[in-house]
Amino acid sequence: MTQRTLIKNLPAATDGPASVSGWVETVRDQKKVQFVVLRDESGAVQLVHPRLFAEDGTPEADPLAEAISALAQGTFLTASGELKHDERVKLGGVEIKLESLDIAAAAIPETPIADDSAGDKRMDWRFLDLRQPKNNLIFRIQTTLEHAWRTYWVENDFIELHTPKLMASASESKAELFEVGYFDTKAYLAQSPQFFKQMAQPAGFGKIFEVGPAFRADPSFTSRHATEFTSVDSEISWIDSHEDVMKLHEELLVAGFAAVKAKHGAEIEALWGVEVTVPTTPFPRIPLAEAKRIVAERGYEVPRQDDDMDPEGERQIAAYVKETFDHEFVFLTDYASSIRPFYHMRHDGDDSLTNSYDLIFNGVEISTGAQREHRVEVLVEQAKSKGLEPEELDFYLDFFRYGVPPHGGFGMGLSRVLMLMLHLSNIREATYLFRGPTRLLP
Amino acid sequence: MTQRTLIKNLPAATDGPASVSGWVETVRDQKKVQFVVLRDESGAVQLVHPRLFAEDGTPEADPLAEAISALAQGTFLTASGELKHDERVKLGGVEIKLESLDIAAAAIPETPIADDSAGDKRMDWRFLDLRQPKNNLIFRIQTTLEHAWRTYWVENDFIELHTPKLMASASESKAELFEVGYFDTKAYLAQSPQFFKQMAQPAGFGKIFEVGPAFRADPSFTSRHATEFTSVDSEISWIDSHEDVMKLHEELLVAGFAAVKAKHGAEIEALWGVEVTVPTTPFPRIPLAEAKRIVAERGYEVPRQDDDMDPEGERQIAAYVKETFDHEFVFLTDYASSIRPFYHMRHDGDDSLTNSYDLIFNGVEISTGAQREHRVEVLVEQAKSKGLEPEELDFYLDFFRYGVPPHGGFGMGLSRVLMLMLHLSNIREATYLFRGPTRLLP
Repeated sequence: MTQRTLIKNLPAATDGPASVSGWVETVRDQKKVQFVVLRDESGAVQLVHPRLFAEDGTPEADPLAEAISALAQGTFLTASGELKHDERVKLGGVEIKLESLDIAAAAIPETPIADDSAGDKRMDWRFLDLRQPKNNLIFRIQTTLEHAWRTYWVENDFIELHTPKLMASASESKAELFEVGYFDTKAYLAQSPQFFKQMAQPAGFGKIFEVGPAFRADPSFTSRHATEFTSVDSEISWIDSHEDVMKLHEELLVAGFAAVKAKHGAEIEALWGVEVTVPTTPFPRIPLAEAKRIVAERGYEVPRQDDDMDPEGERQIAAYVKETFDHEFVFLTDYASSIRPFYHMRHDGDDSLTNSYDLIFNGVEISTGAQREHRVEVLVEQAKSKGLEPEELDFYLDFFRYGVPPHGGFGMGLSRVLMLMLHLSNIREATYLFRGPTRLLP
Repeated sequence: MTQRTLIKNLPAATDGPASVSGWVETVRDQKKVQFVVLRDESGAVQLVHPRLFAEDGTPEADPLAEAISALAQGTFLTASGELKHDERVKLGGVEIKLESLDIAAAAIPETPIADDSAGDKRMDWRFLDLRQPKNNLIFRIQTTLEHAWRTYWVENDFIELHTPKLMASASESKAELFEVGYFDTKAYLAQSPQFFKQMAQPAGFGKIFEVGPAFRADPSFTSRHATEFTSVDSEISWIDSHEDVMKLHEELLVAGFAAVKAKHGAEIEALWGVEVTVPTTPFPRIPLAEAKRIVAERGYEVPRQDDDMDPEGERQIAAYVKETFDHEFVFLTDYASSIRPFYHMRHDGDDSLTNSYDLIFNGVEISTGAQREHRVEVLVEQAKSKGLEPEELDFYLDFFRYGVPPHGGFGMGLSRVLMLMLHLSNIREATYLFRGPTRLLP
């Protein structure tokens, strides 16, 4: 490996010889002295080179100065010189007096995006856009969040799954389904790991989790949708109702948010002015019907024919919860059977409602959870009532015919959690490479 | 949640009332006493019920006995009764004297697979096959292995990526590519995260990892291939050569194997008779040309026209390494440029060899790693020499035009590692749901 000091470690290093490697953020090419701001994955530092002059003030041969003048923004290089602490230097209180530059790859001088470039142009040049400290931090936060979740799962004896993304049939609905040419036949991309994470239940796995891609051929262009997204899924056995799933969900979010706050709270506050709040448990729970009444009392009538909430209704109920309980999360529970998939269990004694919930975070839905119907004869009836052919679902229904425990779980959109945690305006900012109806590149 | 004791915790529990939940493994329905072996995700326990008789020896009304007699293998239930320690009981030294059964879902009595069912039939009924303790353990080992790797990465400041699996073009070769209908155009499934994990380098992410699916439209039916597999990828900046990648790779494997040995070593030994060996570092490194000479000296001439090794050659060199160095791993290094992708860096001064390696574990290739060519003009020439059109790769070549650090990494097949660690005969056993040319179900 190149011998280098990570830039974030320079303030704690002692004065003397130092090498750093990174890319050129800015060059200030002044008459008497040159400054380069070099950034690596951990921070930025000022490199300085006083130009060489003879005693009479005439410029001397100065190859290093020429090299600095020729540096294009974005060029990756290793810089060596003398580290010096100087509290007048705003950038970390240190600078490096340059002795040599070793250029790894020179950048084309014209940078295709600027600070004011529009979102689509930024996505065209995502690898440059990601050089921004904010964007880098988003993915370090993602890393911390996921690792905290996985650590919770592993410490609680969950099994990690990688379910197949190639399927012989739809997992959710026949709409929004991508078709794949598969040798002499065709396959479909998994819209969720639903069937296969449930399969772990009759398999006797007990508690499972998966973090992986899901695909929706959804033609919408909202700030919350993508055709490919990272789905965070968990499923557990021997629940009594969706209440048990919500408890798991809460504990997981607390573990994740606590880890993010501990590791990145100060940076998040500095870069976005956002304070990460570790949620208190239990999160508020409001049955959907009551939530609609509350929203109506606030003067908003959800303009939908079905029984569902809409995005503005979710914002309204979130505002109510924030005002009333000072909480950023709310479980909306007991959705109507008419707007839930056939595999959600319905209330005992009231077929019109399900043992299900949506989790709203800062006004946007981030997750759907439910107890699953595990009684195969009931499941078949529910599938029929949704207009599905049980024959097509036979491989799935088999999971229930040879014994299965009561179970439930949730699926959650990773990028939505990040977007709402950091108050970003669009899921695209929280996705490494966004995929939408007109976006397959880079 | 159902109040239950995990079966593995029964031996340490005190005698008295206990409830366990799981599925019926066997029923021994004897005249005087009935035995049920119930299994959950953690183990198995014997439930016992002495049939009821009047003093004169005539049978009494005994609804519990009737319920037990009616139990089908696979039925999921909660059993309550009195826990009793009894060292004569082979299964954990405990049994539960039954008081009640609460059936969650009764199984169809005819079980579609038996102990001697063939592999394909087992895959048809994978959720039943997974109930076997060995199969359950495979995925608990997978969980431990992955978590150890991720912990290593996170503690070493790697960023976790989720790169898109939908692409506008091929990432590896135009052969073995799945095509997806994508709105008014078409997309391809990622054969590897190669381009996008490299993109993190000009993005300034430094060190990254990803565990996610990769797709190959490979029509082969070997014990090592699947059309969808879980790829373990890592990529790092500022390397001097592939040697730096191999060092990372070794450290990661040591961390993973140490965690598996510590947590599951005894179970693995008990179930498979396999001792997990934490590899010593450095792993042996043998240039491919030398490996071919060694194999030839052992009497095996690799029957290939190109410069590559073949599976038997890999077994032979692994046997040599085991005999000579007592090591299960070997890096074969410096593959010929002719058999490596265009993006592998070639030797300084010898265009015919690459800064690359394959990692062989117990005789089978589990990974390919390399230093990547980061000099765009060299990269363009190498692409052309492979018959590729630089125009089609333009979005990828752009990653190198605006500055990029020297970098390298590897991709590794998760199921192959598990298969070889546990001495399984087929990757299908180490895959939750296998996908092959004729296998899309369940």
